Amino acid sequence: MSPLPQGSTIGILGGGQLGRMLSLAASKLGMKTHIYCPDANSPAFEVTPHKTVAAYDDEAALAAFADAVDVITYEFENVPAATAEFLAARKPLRPGANALAISQDRLAEKSFLASKNIPVAPHRAVESLADLEAAIDALGLPAVLKTTRLGYDGKGQRVLRDRADAAAAFAALEPKPLVLEAFIPFDKEISVVVARNTTGEVRAFDAAENVHRDHILFTSTVPADIAPGLEKHAAMLAKVIVVALDYVGVLGVEFFVVPSGERQALVVNEIAPRVHNSGHWTEAVCLTDQFEQHIRAVLGWPLGDPARMADVVMENLVGDEVLTVPTGIDGNTQPHLYGKTEIRAGRKMGHINKITRRS
Amino acid sequence: MSPLPQGSTIGILGGGQLGRMLSLAASKLGMKTHIYCPDANSPAFEVTPHKTVAAYDDEAALAAFADAVDVITYEFENVPAATAEFLAARKPLRPGANALAISQDRLAEKSFLASKNIPVAPHRAVESLADLEAAIDALGLPAVLKTTRLGYDGKGQRVLRDRADAAAAFAALEPKPLVLEAFIPFDKEISVVVARNTTGEVRAFDAAENVHRDHILFTSTVPADIAPGLEKHAAMLAKVIVVALDYVGVLGVEFFVVPSGERQALVVNEIAPRVHNSGHWTEAVCLTDQFEQHIRAVLGWPLGDPARMADVVMENLVGDEVLTVPTGIDGNTQPHLYGKTEIRAGRKMGHINKITRRS
Repeated sequence: MSPLPQGSTIGILGGGQLGRMLSLAASKLGMKTHIYCPDANSPAFEVTPHKTVAAYDDEAALAAFADAVDVITYEFENVPAATAEFLAARKPLRPGANALAISQDRLAEKSFLASKNIPVAPHRAVESLADLEAAIDALGLPAVLKTTRLGYDGKGQRVLRDRADAAAAFAALEPKPLVLEAFIPFDKEISVVVARNTTGEVRAFDAAENVHRDHILFTSTVPADIAPGLEKHAAMLAKVIVVALDYVGVLGVEFFVVPSGERQALVVNEIAPRVHNSGHWTEAVCLTDQFEQHIRAVLGWPLGDPARMADVVMENLVGDEVLTVPTGIDGNTQPHLYGKTEIRAGRKMGHINKITRRS
Repeated sequence: MSPLPQGSTIGILGGGQLGRMLSLAASKLGMKTHIYCPDANSPAFEVTPHKTVAAYDDEAALAAFADAVDVITYEFENVPAATAEFLAARKPLRPGANALAISQDRLAEKSFLASKNIPVAPHRAVESLADLEAAIDALGLPAVLKTTRLGYDGKGQRVLRDRADAAAAFAALEPKPLVLEAFIPFDKEISVVVARNTTGEVRAFDAAENVHRDHILFTSTVPADIAPGLEKHAAMLAKVIVVALDYVGVLGVEFFVVPSGERQALVVNEIAPRVHNSGHWTEAVCLTDQFEQHIRAVLGWPLGDPARMADVVMENLVGDEVLTVPTGIDGNTQPHLYGKTEIRAGRKMGHINKITRRS
């Protein structure tokens, strides 16, 4: 398919900050965007005149949306499978339904990655309390019990330290089935945002070193403080994943960096078929940021240059931390606020990119 | 006045590419924008749900617009004085009506600059053919006869090389009065984009060296190939101008670089009270670009960091040159397309920023 020309319309499922930033990037390439989201108060609705406020299973609304756009993408991995199939039958859906199906199910994701010889944590499917007991026998404790679907930002998971906690944790987590993952005593967490386009071109941004706070990403620091060989290996694994998925768009890959004798090794924690919070730093220091890269891929364009022009720390502004902008930040810092009307504890309200060294 | 918080609404007069890029920059700071433009087909209407399609002298529409926004700015210097006054009486207008009045009249602008000891070309007001004859006597030929109002991209001016051309040129140029400017045999043209905020903070971007083609800006190259002392002097003159105007926002200052004995000197060609085409390079290589800088100033925010992270050439895509994107540009290049629906000869359709050296 030839590249979509300027003036084309990109349909975006999801109206949060990622959808908003995708829309802004699309506008810079001369595109129109149409945001589809059930929440009438979505921040992405403020950056385009074209919107649909409807449920993700409203087939009349989905059909009209598909008619109004040239290509469809999304900002979140929990797009219902039926919605993805319905839309993909009408207009190109990028990334495809396959990537969604795999990444919205932890078990399917881990099986897929393992089948491509990508290292993942030892794990067992848990459909019953008996399964959980057997999984604990196999993996030992501590271990992490997780829902296979709909988890994010630490929701949908419990750390098990004692066998006596198993029954309560099993009862509390919904929806079933669950998965028990061996606890990985990692040194640090890193992530790589990688892109693949319709012609098979693949490019990765530099790895970011991530620190979480209250299960929410707090900072991403670039470059990551890891051996150069390990960073190259992370990029290679990320590229293997997008090739194996026949993927089109940007994908986030989270890794644990684990001790391995004298050195360190990588274990993939999870993948996200979308632009990723740990890639927001690209906006400040790359000629092509992750949002433009995703839009380029979705449009069938050549990928842009992901090279980095400076060292940077991205910090999320959660809850009322957003009030530190503009007066509490210094001149070496680029803010991005999401225009959310209500400040709530634990809500991602914006982020800042702080330049730590100019190269 | 305290800085406007995220979620505030910025009203923008003018719906062209500059208004569109201002709106995108405002969205990145969490703001809403409302675009006012008489042309229903304005490209800026594609990046916000809030618009007014009405004439600039429609007082009912202007009043409703002022009611709907928190602060007002504009993308072009030819906002009618009555419109500016009407709006400024209702909401803060930044930059102010004073800057508009001066910059939309070549004679007023030159008188103002000269009064601040800023070097400008020798010139004479021309209200009649007799004035023109006297002006030619005083300034010599060649000289450039210009309208005092509404000129842009080479429109509204004629180069006089022969006294016999005077009458025809005088008759052809409208509206009167006109101004005759001595022809400046310049070595090159440069420009400086400078910003001042509500607290009086002033910051300038690096100077760009500009090349025109068919009277339209073709390329801006940064750094400009001039002596460091001359660049510092240009920044200083630009800062003097915004201070003298008690200006709030971004202002473009165009200079001629002229021979001066063994060295070079500067003559101000014109000023523009808005973001400037020769500042589009800032988008690719500065932590704060000219659009965000303007929005910060208009919001009463501290200014951002204008430091440059790489060398760059901005090239305008005029007419069907826009069709070279995406396949005809290389990976070291950041495109920005304006989403204009109709390609016409001489129409600015987009620009590209090409990185020439990473520092």
